[in-house]
Formats: sequence, C-alpha cells, structure tokens
Amino acid sequence: MVTANPLLIPELRLMLAEGDATGLREVASELHPASVAEFSEGLDDREIWQLLGSVPVERQAEIFPYYPLARQVRLIESADRDRLGPLIEAMAADNRADLLREFDSDKVEEILPLVAKAERHDIRMLLSCPEDSAGALMTTEYASLPAHVTAGEAVARLRTQAPATESIYYIYVLDGDRRLVGIVSLRALILARPTALVSDLMQRDPIRVRVEEPRDEVVRTLARFDFLAIPVVDDQDCLVGIVTHDDVLDAVRQGATDDAQRIAAVSPLGESYLEAAVGTMTWKRGVWLTVLFATAAVTAMVLANSPITHAWLIPFIPLVIASGGNSGNQSATLVITALSTGDCHLEDWPRILRREVVLGFLLGGLLAVPGYLLALVYAPTPYAALVIPLTILAVVMLGTLIGSVLPLAFRSAGLDPALMSNPFVSAIVDFLGIVIYTLVAMVVLG
Amino acid sequence: MVTANPLLIPELRLMLAEGDATGLREVASELHPASVAEFSEGLDDREIWQLLGSVPVERQAEIFPYYPLARQVRLIESADRDRLGPLIEAMAADNRADLLREFDSDKVEEILPLVAKAERHDIRMLLSCPEDSAGALMTTEYASLPAHVTAGEAVARLRTQAPATESIYYIYVLDGDRRLVGIVSLRALILARPTALVSDLMQRDPIRVRVEEPRDEVVRTLARFDFLAIPVVDDQDCLVGIVTHDDVLDAVRQGATDDAQRIAAVSPLGESYLEAAVGTMTWKRGVWLTVLFATAAVTAMVLANSPITHAWLIPFIPLVIASGGNSGNQSATLVITALSTGDCHLEDWPRILRREVVLGFLLGGLLAVPGYLLALVYAPTPYAALVIPLTILAVVMLGTLIGSVLPLAFRSAGLDPALMSNPFVSAIVDFLGIVIYTLVAMVVLG
Repeated sequence: MVTANPLLIPELRLMLAEGDATGLREVASELHPASVAEFSEGLDDREIWQLLGSVPVERQAEIFPYYPLARQVRLIESADRDRLGPLIEAMAADNRADLLREFDSDKVEEILPLVAKAERHDIRMLLSCPEDSAGALMTTEYASLPAHVTAGEAVARLRTQAPATESIYYIYVLDGDRRLVGIVSLRALILARPTALVSDLMQRDPIRVRVEEPRDEVVRTLARFDFLAIPVVDDQDCLVGIVTHDDVLDAVRQGATDDAQRIAAVSPLGESYLEAAVGTMTWKRGVWLTVLFATAAVTAMVLANSPITHAWLIPFIPLVIASGGNSGNQSATLVITALSTGDCHLEDWPRILRREVVLGFLLGGLLAVPGYLLALVYAPTPYAALVIPLTILAVVMLGTLIGSVLPLAFRSAGLDPALMSNPFVSAIVDFLGIVIYTLVAMVVLG
Repeated sequence: MVTANPLLIPELRLMLAEGDATGLREVASELHPASVAEFSEGLDDREIWQLLGSVPVERQAEIFPYYPLARQVRLIESADRDRLGPLIEAMAADNRADLLREFDSDKVEEILPLVAKAERHDIRMLLSCPEDSAGALMTTEYASLPAHVTAGEAVARLRTQAPATESIYYIYVLDGDRRLVGIVSLRALILARPTALVSDLMQRDPIRVRVEEPRDEVVRTLARFDFLAIPVVDDQDCLVGIVTHDDVLDAVRQGATDDAQRIAAVSPLGESYLEAAVGTMTWKRGVWLTVLFATAAVTAMVLANSPITHAWLIPFIPLVIASGGNSGNQSATLVITALSTGDCHLEDWPRILRREVVLGFLLGGLLAVPGYLLALVYAPTPYAALVIPLTILAVVMLGTLIGSVLPLAFRSAGLDPALMSNPFVSAIVDFLGIVIYTLVAMVVLG
C-alpha cells in the first residue's frame, strides 16, 4: 500500500502536549478515518480523546469504529458521560451495535439514556438479533423510495437522504407497509431519462435474506451475486436493514481466522494474537490441550494392557498412529472447508463418505508399500512383517472415515463443524489405531 | 437466502428439447446472471451453449463468468470458434483474464486472434501480471475524469462511460499523463452543485496499491479502509486498473480455503471438494502423506534404537508425542493466521518467540501434573515416574517453539507460512519428542 502523509507518534505527542488544536484538527480531519485510528492507536486513552475532541462529533464517529473493538470498549469506559451520548448517536447503526454488544446489559442500560429515543429503539432492535445472524451484521441506515416517483425526483430525494445513509448506491423500493418490492441502483437512476418511473427501472423481487439467517449464508449470497449490499427482511417481508460488502468482508476474514484456530484446537481468540493476554491464551489453549491429554491418557492405558509383546512392533507405534491422524486431518479439513464455503452440504453425506472410503483405500494402499518395506527390516519373517501394511491400510481408511463423519455429525447436530478439530480427530484415531494394531498383530502373529 | 423463481433442470431440459427460444430467453435474461449460471450448471456443454445462444452476447458475457472456472474452461474448449471471439470481447476484463490464465500459452495464442486489437493488448497486459499480485486481481475497466470539469459535466460524461465500466461509484481523476491525482465518489458528484469543479470535490492523493503488490496486502488495504475498489498504479504512478470489492471477497474466501488445506497438508484443490477427481485428490493428499510417512519412518528407526527398555515407558510414547504435537499445532496455526491477517509481522519475531516460550512453560506445566499422576500408576517408584512430567514439559516447550519458529522462518524465506503445515510440525515434534523421552529416561533412570 502507498499511504499518504505518514505521521509519527512523537510528532502527534508533541502536538498534544503543546495543545496545538489546529495541527490536531488537520491530522484528524484530512486523513482517511482508518488511517487516523491506525496511527493514533499507540496513544493512551486520554490522548485519543484529546485528538478526537479537536474535530466535530460526526468526524469522531467516523474515526472511532476503526479502533480495534477491545480498544473501543476501553475508550468508552474512560470517556466523560457528556461526550458519550453525542458520539454514540452519531455512529453508524451497525458499528454502534457491534460496540454495545461487547458490554453487559447493565452497562448498556447505563449508556442508553444518553442517546435520543429513535436511536435507542434502533440499538435495542439490533442488539436483540442473535449473534452470527444477518441481523447482527446489518445496518439500519439505507436509502429507500416509493415505486411511483421518477428518476429525477429519486435523485433529488437521495440528496436529502444521503448524509444519513451508509450506502446510497443501491436504493430499496418499498410499498406503503415498508415491504420490499424492488431495488434500483444509483447507476440506473443516473443513466435513465429523468422522467422515467422508478417502478420501470427497478429490478423486481430482489434477492434478500431473512433477519435470522446465519452469517455464513449471508456471506455466500453476497459473494455469489457480487452485491454491494444485501437487503434484510423480517417475517412480513418488511425491510429492516442491509448488510454491506465491507461488513461481509470483515466477517469472512474474522470467520476464517476463528475456523483455523478451532481446527487447531484453540478457542477463537477474538482479538489480535499479539494483544491477547498470556493468561487468556493459556486458558484458551490449555483447556483443549487438557481434554486432548485425557484422550491420549486413555490411549496409553489401552497400550499398557495391549498384548503387543513382540519388541519389534513397538517402534512402529508412532508411525501407525501418525498415518491415521494425518489422513484423518486431511479429510476433516476438506469436509469442514467445503461445508463452510457451501461447496458441499449435509445432504451430500453419502457422496462424501463414498469418496473418503475410496480415498482411504487408495491412500492406505499407497502408504502400506513403504510400510511393508520398512517392516521387513525389523520383523523376524516376511509374513510377520505383514502386520504393518495391514494395520496402516486399516488405520488410514478409519482415519479418512472418522475425519469426514465427525464434521458432518457436528453440522447435523447444529454445531460448528470446525469444533470437531483436527487434534480431536487425531486423538480418536490414535486410540482406535492402537486397538487395530493390537488386533491385527494378534490375528497375524497368533 | 430467499430466491425468486426457482427453476428446475427438467423444465429447462424440456424447453431445450422443444427449442422453446422465447422461454429460454426469458430464463436467461430475467434472472440474476449468477442464478442463471447456478441452475444451468447441471446441463451438458451443448445445452448450456444452446441456452446462452438465446440471449445477446453482452448478456452471455455477464452469465458466463459465474460458472465455476473449470467448467468455463470445458465450455470454451467445446465452443464454436465463431462465437468465442465476440463472447471473450464482451466479457469484463478481469473475468476474461482469469479464464485465459487457465489455458497454456498455445491455446491463448489460438484464441487471441479472434478478438479485437484493443482487447488483445489488454488481455496480454493482464496475463503478464504475476499470480497473486494486485495486477492479477484487477480489472482495466474504470471510470475516469480530468480534474477541471464540473460535477454536472462529470455526471454527463459518466453516462457515456458507464456501460463499459464495471464500477462507476468511484471515479478516478487523472492528469494529462494518466497519473492518479484524486478520487471522487458518485455520491459526492450527486450531492454537489452541478457547477462545482471536480478538482474541489475530489479527495487528493488517494490510497492506492502498486501493480506488483501481493494479494494479501491488497486485501488488507481494501478491508481496512472499507473501499468499494482500490486503484492500482504502475511505477510512474499511472492508473492501470482497479481491484473491486467483489474480487477481493472471492480472493479472501479462496485464500482461506487454500490456507486451511495447506495447514492440513493437502495441496490446495483449487476446485470444489465434490468436483475434484479422485485421482487428483489421491495425488494432492498422497504426496504429502508420503513425505510425512518418511519422517515418521525416521522416528520409528530412532525408537528401534532407543534404550527405552523399561516396559512401563512404552505405553506413554503416544501420549508424550501427542502433547508436543498438539501444542505445536496450536502455535503454528496462531502464528500463521496472525501473519496472514496482518495482526503480526516478521519483525515481531522476538515478541512472538518470547510469548511462545512462556506459554510453552505454562502449558507444559499444566499437562505435567496429570502426566505425573498417570505415571505413578505404572512406574515402579515415584522417582522413576518423574520421567513422564519432565518429558511432557520439555516436549510441550519444544512444540510451541518449533510451531512458532517454522512459519516465521518460512515467511522470512519468502515462502507461504501455511506450507509449514501442522502435520509437519507434528512430524518434527514427534521425532524430537522421542529423542527427548530417551534422554530424560536415561538421565532419570540411569
């Protein structure tokens, strides 16, 4: 990226110390709000409030949401009550709901009386939407029109609506009951004759999502149709908000990080890696490591009672269980990502399982060959060495099967498939791998 | 999602069989292009060409890019030469470059003479951009203006430019040498007095990316500033294209899937899980399983020569190596995701390593406690049982260290950190875990 006007914290501190209001105002009003937030993040809370205080509240409300959410919370907690109300009122509806969602209900009830009644109603409505739903992603600020106006009138009306709406490039056409009947782009309005009717220019019956629709479905829909924003309706098909492209992009990026962390058995941090406290990290990692430890302990107990008495079989233990764990991890990750991108659905389970059984057989066969060659070195006879390739084949097939079944089972139980993380698949395959190894050894060696 | 007009393949097949041109035209022209592509995907190539043939080439070019890329390639290969040229000419510049990038250069040279000279030049320029760069994501269709025109004139000019440009909501202001001097939104033009000059309305010195900038950096910049599109400039600061929000969203979604697959040691499929051929899947998974098998074989050979002669130590082998592998996986995933989202950078390595050493000590200590309790059951004396907690502590610390060092080392070597996937971390930690276990047992038990 090529940024304009790189500004350093020391210069900013100097302006703050000298009370250089003109300098501060220039910095806070001329750069992109995201840039202002980014380079002032290193200041302390009091200094940030001093910087924000140099510009009107509308500008403050543009800059504020670009601080990381955890920082916004700290700033709100350190703010004077008399500047809190105007700032929250001026913030975009979705940004302010995201912020207030971070507080417990007592704190929210303390803040709400500071803002105007219409805003209060709006905030309560957005806060009541379940997490990870379309409602939690949407903003209530959008441009709307009735169908009977002309393109010329429409543009004139937008001039008055525009300052209050986040996005004016799609205009939603509503009937008298605020039901969504069409959508018209600003592009179409500009290109049309000024006398053309919106009802003739609009696209009827536009694609929409319901307010309770899950986040992933909203993302898939917007991505599939390349929309700038997608309308959100309630049970009566009335427009209640829109989800914009930038919020979807943020949701996808956050979701990808959360999923990757879940797959590696870390509870999603929800904050930047370097910012998370060591205590938080220890907890979010330790709790899963302990659970995994417990399953590994069961494996150890099985092994302690296993009659794998031939000494030459022991060095192959890690090899056998790693083969199952690795192939199981591959299957689990492929199924988890395919479910989350919408490449496959729960209903495809027979196809998925068929694929994984075939792949398990092929991959197990592939690894069985070097396994047999290695076993020939240590086994007393070529016949005895067969224990290793047979076990590898069985364990890999089991790994792919378990790796694909578990995420599907989680999805069908309404849970996040990413919770059925790779270390869990490994832990289960480790345990069953030892059981299979023991059984195969008993059958082959007698 | 609530879709309008669900249409079924059998109905469509009937229209095709009956040669119902009116019905086909209605289907292909009234729905969103993405919907047309989606529900016609189940048809064979000849049927799709018949459906597309019912509408003008401009509409065909809107629908075509919504088929999966692999399908687009098959369709192009099965197409009549005389319809290929007009279709490729009519497609958006970025979509057609994405498609042609899938063919080898011989096939591209065969197709290029079919399109007009200006288009040919544009295609060659886009195809010359390195993969995963801003240039490979951008389109060359954008709206531009000189600075000296008025808002009223600007809107009039947009009316003539609009049909050819993908995005008219940001207009790029260029000087006589096509250098980027500013950016003005359609919103600002609409809200301004018609006599206001663009040079007074535009934001000067806008944020931009260079054509060779890596994809991740483009994503981060667009996401940070919530832009609809970001301008791409060459070395002389001349505007060469724009990257739009929808292409960034697609890139992020594809990138997240690729990363997850790499982390699980699968070469990115690059196509839908259910569509990938079994042979392709076997190769993309088998190659890494074989590499991992080789490292596990080394572990087995070390174990075969290890003097862990006390029988009670053997059942703890999987437990010890799983503890190291799991904590190593957590560290690797956290560092990989933090690097890819831009939450941390290569220069932060001393902080990252310090964190991971501290966490390794805490997490290792946490697991050492139940490890000691379990060891007491099997060990001959409480002193001998100390082998297990000491090994766990050392292995977990090693796991977190290796899990964090390897992605950093890969990034500093200019490689994708996700390549240093979890199974590799496990494989290395498995091997070192056995070595540590042997050493600790020798020291404690003599």
